[in-house]
Amino acid sequence: MKILLIIADGLGDRPFESLNGKTTLEAANKPNLNRLAKEGMVGLIDPIRPGVIPGSDTSHLNYLGYDPFKYYTGRGPFEAMGTGLTLKGGDVAFRANFATVDKNGTVTDRRAGRIREGTSELAKSLNMKIEDVEVLFKEGTEHRAALVLRGQGITTDVTDNDPHAENLKPRDIVPTTKEGIKTARILNEFYKRSLLILKDHPLNKRRRTEGLREANAILYRGGGQVPTLPNFAERYSLKGGYVAAVALVSGICRLVGLRDFTPNGVTGSIDTDVRKKFSAAIEALKEVDFVIVNVKGTDIAGHDGNGIAKKEFIEKIDEAMGETIMKVRNDIVICFTGDHSTPASVKEHTSDPVPILLHYPGCRRDGVGDFDEISAKNGYLRLTGSDLMNVLLSSANRAEKYGA
Amino acid sequence: MKILLIIADGLGDRPFESLNGKTTLEAANKPNLNRLAKEGMVGLIDPIRPGVIPGSDTSHLNYLGYDPFKYYTGRGPFEAMGTGLTLKGGDVAFRANFATVDKNGTVTDRRAGRIREGTSELAKSLNMKIEDVEVLFKEGTEHRAALVLRGQGITTDVTDNDPHAENLKPRDIVPTTKEGIKTARILNEFYKRSLLILKDHPLNKRRRTEGLREANAILYRGGGQVPTLPNFAERYSLKGGYVAAVALVSGICRLVGLRDFTPNGVTGSIDTDVRKKFSAAIEALKEVDFVIVNVKGTDIAGHDGNGIAKKEFIEKIDEAMGETIMKVRNDIVICFTGDHSTPASVKEHTSDPVPILLHYPGCRRDGVGDFDEISAKNGYLRLTGSDLMNVLLSSANRAEKYGA
Repeated sequence: MKILLIIADGLGDRPFESLNGKTTLEAANKPNLNRLAKEGMVGLIDPIRPGVIPGSDTSHLNYLGYDPFKYYTGRGPFEAMGTGLTLKGGDVAFRANFATVDKNGTVTDRRAGRIREGTSELAKSLNMKIEDVEVLFKEGTEHRAALVLRGQGITTDVTDNDPHAENLKPRDIVPTTKEGIKTARILNEFYKRSLLILKDHPLNKRRRTEGLREANAILYRGGGQVPTLPNFAERYSLKGGYVAAVALVSGICRLVGLRDFTPNGVTGSIDTDVRKKFSAAIEALKEVDFVIVNVKGTDIAGHDGNGIAKKEFIEKIDEAMGETIMKVRNDIVICFTGDHSTPASVKEHTSDPVPILLHYPGCRRDGVGDFDEISAKNGYLRLTGSDLMNVLLSSANRAEKYGA
Repeated sequence: MKILLIIADGLGDRPFESLNGKTTLEAANKPNLNRLAKEGMVGLIDPIRPGVIPGSDTSHLNYLGYDPFKYYTGRGPFEAMGTGLTLKGGDVAFRANFATVDKNGTVTDRRAGRIREGTSELAKSLNMKIEDVEVLFKEGTEHRAALVLRGQGITTDVTDNDPHAENLKPRDIVPTTKEGIKTARILNEFYKRSLLILKDHPLNKRRRTEGLREANAILYRGGGQVPTLPNFAERYSLKGGYVAAVALVSGICRLVGLRDFTPNGVTGSIDTDVRKKFSAAIEALKEVDFVIVNVKGTDIAGHDGNGIAKKEFIEKIDEAMGETIMKVRNDIVICFTGDHSTPASVKEHTSDPVPILLHYPGCRRDGVGDFDEISAKNGYLRLTGSDLMNVLLSSANRAEKYGA
């Protein structure tokens, strides 16, 4: 059987005041999710382990069967993927800022006036080759960006140049071991060239005339090596694909070798076309055996503290399921859950376990006909993230017996 | 937010005949615990793992985040702490007995007639310095005592001298490796000196005239090195304190660097002033971020097989909560559980999972309004002891996100 894994990002919630103390899932009108619950089983999943607050990166890795305690190499590589860069195992990625330095090279603003516009042009101008090393530079949100070095002998054994405070000069870029010598040389050369490029960049000229702080220097920190992840298809004998408009998630999917089935025009926003994503996923299942779909609106509304919008996005998901997923539900394994909780009352990720729903032909029915955080505790499943792939493979009759 | 962790020692129970087959928690009148349950969530915790019978030491270690499989170095060090000795990482501690030997040095009673009185005086006389090594000796219950060596080069690489049977001579004290040579020398010297000191001790002279067996020799066994535990405050960025009148528990708390807030006059007995302990804990939370409180009466009544007394002690806890903890319940994280089960029907620790209650502002409510072993299974939580600190930190918004 084929497997459809739907991740409603940040799905889990807590009682929300404007919803009369109900959680967003409890308050939402969701006949399709409830029907799947009734026909299948529900429960709770700790994406990492109880009490550990998951990031979307560590959680998606764990769900796909890649132990984050083994493979997660820090925010640098995963935030870099989040900018949309396609990274490869072995690349070294840093978190970077556009910053403002004065004539003496002293940092006067670590965030270049929280610059919002034009960073894409600036970033493009900073892609270059130094020696045999490819330097990739990509803007993120506001002043944030990713700096990636790709080439032989590149390591993380170098100091950060970010002084982490204003009125200081960027720190010297020096190797911390012999293995860092080449990387430090490349980064020093990059810093020198970037000062020249940014100084004369039309955008900075304009900002100068407008009295805005120039984005005329690059500070970086938190380097990490992109992990080389075992290929998903080989690991599970399963051709896999993804539908995800969030760069961090799609970056991870690409890294494990999942194929991109994301249709044009969908986004990671709350106003995205969920039905289009689901349709694309079902189409994809004609070509591959496993598809993971990420819808992000739940998380965004959670971070915004907007429980009403989160509830409505859940209703949008449910409605989109009616015309797509519900029609194939007797032919495939369907799993619906979140990668973590983002309660609207907290506006941040929390470690609350996430409700999970599992539905496949002939499965046990636990008699719970509501899909929400509280009903879920009466359901059948109590998993941690690292169990998920095993459970899915097994539900799809794709697991091998362990023993005789 | 600040965190209050209340451990009712040996809380978990089984059906008890004189309580009409109810557990002590089920039978107890406990409106405050039930209210906290209703407003928060309940569940079950396996202090170590399912089927493993916890000691109070291994369980408290695990709850505080110190894996006993890594840090627990045997009963010697922890029973020594239980006598009230303040131990340091690196000390070597043995379990010791006061014993009776005849003129030939043969052990005639391994327990010195189960001596009960005067052991404190005897023990005091056995504290000494040998070479550069400090010898600490402290009486325990009845004939039991702790022997601790503190100094450079002290190891556990020596044989026990306890013959484990009567009518034998104490075994030779010899090193089992080169590293044990010094320790064996110190222990031999201690044994020699102790024979002389005890022989002429007034208490033994009196016992001689009264025809009682003299406590004229020391047998020791089960040496273990006191583990050096990472400091709690550094580990969790959390200033911590404790309220505990049981030496074993307070010894562990001190060992991880928790500050003592135990008020004068409270005890580890069933007639202790529980309200005074709770008030002290709440006062302590003005100075620190985390307080663990241990109340021992539940365990004592359990060991006594007195289910009625255990039920009444639970009611005493509940009443004490009303005037103390219930008043601050909307400002802090409250966790109420036990370190293990001591069913009154068994009179010993068992591996039954222990009911746990978690309450903090805005938390999910699982709708279970009773706090007992059986209702707990309908609750939200299903934890093992090693999860507890993560769950508490996360509930208090003190955990860092793992990932992005």
